[in-house]
Formats: sequence, C-alpha cells, structure tokens
Amino acid sequence: GHPALAPFGTTIFTTMSALAAEHDAVNLGQGFPDTDGPPEVLAAAVEAIRGGRNQYPPGPGTPDLRRAVAEHQERFYGLRYDPASEVLVTVGATEAIAVAMLALLRPGDEVVMFEPYYDSYAATVALAGGVRRTSVLTFPDFAVDEASLRAAFSDRTRVVLLNSPHNPTGKVFTREELELVASLAREHDAWVVTDEVYEHLVFDDARHVPLASLPGMRERTLTISSGGKTFSTTGWKVGWVCGPAAAVAALLAVKQFLTFGASGPFQPAVAAGLRLPDEVFAGLAHALEAKRDRLVGGLRRMGLEVAVPRGTYFVVADVAPLGVVDATDWCLGLPERAGVGAIPVAAFHDDAAAARTLVRLAFCKEDHVLDEGVRRLATLV
Amino acid sequence: GHPALAPFGTTIFTTMSALAAEHDAVNLGQGFPDTDGPPEVLAAAVEAIRGGRNQYPPGPGTPDLRRAVAEHQERFYGLRYDPASEVLVTVGATEAIAVAMLALLRPGDEVVMFEPYYDSYAATVALAGGVRRTSVLTFPDFAVDEASLRAAFSDRTRVVLLNSPHNPTGKVFTREELELVASLAREHDAWVVTDEVYEHLVFDDARHVPLASLPGMRERTLTISSGGKTFSTTGWKVGWVCGPAAAVAALLAVKQFLTFGASGPFQPAVAAGLRLPDEVFAGLAHALEAKRDRLVGGLRRMGLEVAVPRGTYFVVADVAPLGVVDATDWCLGLPERAGVGAIPVAAFHDDAAAARTLVRLAFCKEDHVLDEGVRRLATLV
Ligand SMILES: CSCCC(=O)C(=O)O
Ligand SMILES: CSCCC(=O)C(=O)O
Repeated sequence: GHPALAPFGTTIFTTMSALAAEHDAVNLGQGFPDTDGPPEVLAAAVEAIRGGRNQYPPGPGTPDLRRAVAEHQERFYGLRYDPASEVLVTVGATEAIAVAMLALLRPGDEVVMFEPYYDSYAATVALAGGVRRTSVLTFPDFAVDEASLRAAFSDRTRVVLLNSPHNPTGKVFTREELELVASLAREHDAWVVTDEVYEHLVFDDARHVPLASLPGMRERTLTISSGGKTFSTTGWKVGWVCGPAAAVAALLAVKQFLTFGASGPFQPAVAAGLRLPDEVFAGLAHALEAKRDRLVGGLRRMGLEVAVPRGTYFVVADVAPLGVVDATDWCLGLPERAGVGAIPVAAFHDDAAAARTLVRLAFCKEDHVLDEGVRRLATLV
Repeated sequence: GHPALAPFGTTIFTTMSALAAEHDAVNLGQGFPDTDGPPEVLAAAVEAIRGGRNQYPPGPGTPDLRRAVAEHQERFYGLRYDPASEVLVTVGATEAIAVAMLALLRPGDEVVMFEPYYDSYAATVALAGGVRRTSVLTFPDFAVDEASLRAAFSDRTRVVLLNSPHNPTGKVFTREELELVASLAREHDAWVVTDEVYEHLVFDDARHVPLASLPGMRERTLTISSGGKTFSTTGWKVGWVCGPAAAVAALLAVKQFLTFGASGPFQPAVAAGLRLPDEVFAGLAHALEAKRDRLVGGLRRMGLEVAVPRGTYFVVADVAPLGVVDATDWCLGLPERAGVGAIPVAAFHDDAAAARTLVRLAFCKEDHVLDEGVRRLATLV
C-alpha cells in the first residue's frame, strides 16, 4: 500500500455503513438522504440515458454543465466564472479535493484546516506529500479560535482547506470568521480551497457566504461543490470546481489521468437541476430544517447536549450521559447493540481526546426513520 | 501544477474531440461507439434511477456488481475471485490504473510497458514517482520483440503494465507472447497490472487470454476491465479490478480518498449486463468485426498500408502515401481541412519517430459514418 496512507485505514463511512447494513440498523451515520430529489432532475437523467448520451462526456465536463455551474455561481452569489476555462467537472467533490491537493502541493507544503475535518482532507494532503496544520473547533459552539488559527499558519502554508457549511459540526462559518481566514490566507499568500457542498443546506437566519465572494479572494480561491447534496443524488458523483483559469488547468492536468471524465448522463441532469427556480433550493433547506429540529428535539429529550447545526445533514451530540467514555468503540458496537448507525466525531480529529464522547448523527432521513432512530437510542438511557 | 505531470499536457483525446466538435468533423479519433448498447442494460439504469438507487453506493462497489464481476471472470475464463475481498469497483479502468500505480509504486520503482501505450499509463506512473521502461511494438505486425522486452526489465522492475487487446494497435497478444511476459514478471518478482477493457472485442480466430489465467500468475496479477466498451456505455465509467485480496485492499486504500465511490445507478445496470447470455457478447464482436472490415477496406482502397486489428475499436494506418511527414501536425489540422478526427499514434510513444506517419482511426461507428469518413479522407489522396 501507499506509505503516506498507512495511518488512515478504511474510511469511517465504509466501515460504519457496512456495519449498519449487516445489522439492518437505522443508518444515521453516512450522510445521504433516503428520499429522492427533484423529479425534473431524475427525469433529465432518464432522458439522457434514453436519448443516447451514454458515451464519454468531454474530460473537463460538458460545456452545458460548466455553463450551468457558472450561471449558478452568478445567480446565487454574484460570482462570475468563464465556463470554458474556470469551471471543471469532477467525480464529486471528493475528486476535486484530491486533485486540488495533488496539483497545488509540493512535498513539505503545509495545509491549514479546521478540526474536526472530513476524512479525505487529511488523507489527500498526505498523499500529495503535504503536512496538515489544524485549528480545533470545540463543542458545543465550534467557534473559530483566532489564536490557534493564526498559530496554524507559517511561511510554509500553501493552502487553506476550508469547509462551510461544515461537516461534521453543522457549523456555518460567519462572515467575520471567513474574513479572518481570508486575511490570513492573503497574508501568507496561500490558496484557499473551499468545499461548499452543503451551500444550499442552511437553516434559520444563517447565510452561506462563499469564501471567493470576499474582497480580494476570488483570485486565490478554488470553490468546490457538487450536485449530490443539493439534488439528493449523492450516488451520482457530479462535482465541480470554480477558480482562476491557471489553477483550474493545473487541476485538470491531474484529473484527466485519474478518471478522465465521469457520470456522462448525469451531467445534463445536474445542469437541469442547477437551473431550477430558487424555491426548489429553499424548499430543500426548509424540509431539512424541520428534520433537524425533529432529531435535535429527540436527542434533547434523552438528556443529551446537542450543538444545534445551522447547516448540513448533521448534528453533533455528546453521549456522555449515556455512560459512554469512548464514542468510537460505542459507535462500532451500536448497530448490533441498538440497531443504529452513527459516526464518532473522533474519526475527524488528529487528537481523539478533542471529541471523546461526541457522536455525529444524520437527519437527512424520513421522519419515521428519525423517530425510530431516536426510539432505539433512547433504550440505552 | 504537479511537476511530474508537466511533460504530459492535455490528453490527446480531449484535444482531438474538442477540435472534431469545433469543426463538426466525423470523429474517428476518441474511441466511443455512436450507437447504444444492450437495451436490458439501459433499462436497468433507468429502473435504478426510478427505483431510488441514487445515493452513495458502498465505496468498494455494490455487493451485487462485485458478485457479477466475479461470476463473469469465472464464466468466461474459469478464474475465481471472492467478490467481497478480491473485486473492487472503480471510476472506469482509468481510475483503476491510477490507483494501482499509486498503491504499488515507490519513487524510483520501474514499470515495464509496451509502446505505443495508452496515455494515462505514462502519466500515472510519473504521478506515482515511478519510471517507465518500454518495449516498442512496430508497425505493421506489432510483434513482441523478446530482446527489447527482456532489456526493459531490471532489478528495479516492480510492475508490468499490460494491455490486451491493445490500444492503439488493435493487437491481441498471443498466448506465447503473454507467457513470455508472465515468465519475465515471475523472474523479477513483479506485479502484472493488465488492462483488458477490450476483452470482448476480438475478431477472426483471435482469443482473449487473461494474463491471470496463465500458470502461477493469478497471485501476482491485477486484472482491470470495465463495462464501457462491452456495453457501449463509455460515459458511465464503471470499471473494476480483480486480484489477490491484499493488493485489492491496497488499491482501495487509495481509491476511497480519490473518488470514494461512483456511478451509483449504473452499478446495477452493469451487473445486469455482465449476466447477459454469451450471444450478446459475441454479437457485439461480430458487429464490430464487420465495421473493422469496412474501414480497413476503405483505407486500403485509398492505397494506405493498414495493420488489420484482431481486437479493440481501432485500426492503425500509415498515411505516408498521402504525403504526410508528421502525423501529429496532420491530425491537428485534419478536422478543419477534411472534416475528420483522428489520433496520431505518436501521442502514445516516447519517441515520436517510431510512429511518424501512423494514425489511429476508430471503427466503432455507424456504417454511414465510416463511409463518410473514408470519403472525406479520400479527397486528400
Ligand atoms: C462519501 S461518503 C461520506 C458522505 C458524507 O459526506 C458524510 O457522511 O460525511
Ligand atoms: C477516456 S478517453 C479515451 C478513450 C479511449 O479509450 C481511446 O480513444 O483510446
């Protein structure tokens, strides 16, 4: 195996979803919805398959999808990108992150990221020979600690790898927090790679602010997103990256040899999705907000402390009141013991002590599934 | 950009398909069919989308597709693999090759491959820090030169990267040639990574022999294939790799962080395809054989020397009689000048001199398209 990946093992999502399937558990672990997305999007995929669009799409993505991505960035955020040179289609956001790290990092380059971090961030930085430097977001408010963030930067900082709305905490970074990140990136002449796949899943009065929309940041930011979460099609793996042409070309140089292109008939379908009216996007957030409240309410009634998420699919709860001392062990046994799948937040930390009794639960599920998950967990009280 | 990829530029397929599209050319360049595959396969994809299979498949692939791949290897070749530990689903064969190189190579390790080689082979070896050592197959017979193959091996050989049926030459390696490769691999304790995506596209009395079927080779061979060519769904990007469990696990360790999983609803569709009766597979080869004859006949009538392919989508012709001295320049101008897309074989060589006037043309096209391509090329005589 690759020596840089030796510390990482099997991704927590594969492990936990396999255990959940094995024990026929209510899977509140891996983040995917259990209901389908907009019918227009599904119909467009079917039409593409029936209409003979089953062969290689252009490696960088179909011109129409790249146009739709650019239109979307302009419609929602006023950000303008040239579809032909500043937008690249990838195999979900995951491939975009991997190729960004491979394209931007030289051995020894440092990458600043917040902890907890999505597991592929650490792994792809390592694969590219980079070194991660983290700043911890602490339960339950997950506020940015300015001193620790500053301390994570150095003269070897090459990239800031950001994720807002943030998985696994559900935090939506405030404009002030993003401005701090941006000013540090400018100060250290670093790239910002920002994973915004949950951009449309924000609740209450929270607003998603794309890092690239801050003054002076468009030219040093690669913005990654995907159709998976926005259109409830996580298995289609249609992602993209927007940024300055030279950087996008550098990513394409890697991407073309990793997968060439992908998801042929899903590209027109996601393009159709990106052009749906605003109400469709708002409707999804609205529906998820109610699910968040349902799960948060259930967990609180069990006496658990919960960090109420302002975005994403996920809520983090402290399961210490259930007598848990190590949430990783507890989550590994949970599908068999209680018929529930959950993810230990420690899987996203360098130092497991930062999240010893924290668990991430997904609320992107049907109400009766959430209720059954809560019922099963409550038997452990 | 990544320094190891600096020599590679944009893949020839992207360049040539973009030029072909721009000039509305008959695209005999990039290898994809212009008719759809088995209706059962398309219907299964539509059913998967309508049936709610739009979320993340398991990262290593759906259990059912992995079973279908194992059944296929046993049905056609008598090779047995454990679906759960010896089969991994990838984003087409391209991702399988990339992760195999990243998982198996340490900086300085050597990879033996035949030249001309598919372009991602050289690029992914470089990305993994490896060094390629090549043995040239020479037009028009493309026979293996034993002395040069032996000379390509050394005590740093870690992998032999093979492709049979062979793109771009259309060569189907004979059992004797494969036995030579196998014995050299054993002698140097090397892995064989074998790209067999054209396994079902063989003509005349040629037979595809999987390298893993040779004595003593299963335990040191990773066999890569995909559904793209077999089911005329090149845009779906459902590939796989079969091999010993420890090696497959090493590939998964990389793959999970490059793309996680992919092509959710296409996985059940390709599984359905792999279970179609033998006649479907034979029917495709039969249809393509007639197309090969059609294109070969047309090129010969123009006075060109042609290497008659025993497999794949491709025929290689020497365009020197058309007054060509550099086929790369000639192919770059061809869409505009004659309305035809073609690939210079030099794009697959370290030393362009080995293929100065050779051109690869795809015959996986409707008859009227082939006829029109030939007609347009004939205007250049
Ligand atoms: C690619 S599997 C992980 C899915 C996801 O985004 C999550 O559960 O955090
Ligand atoms: C992935 S694009 C290249 C397609 C192909 O196999 C070829 O044309 O050689």
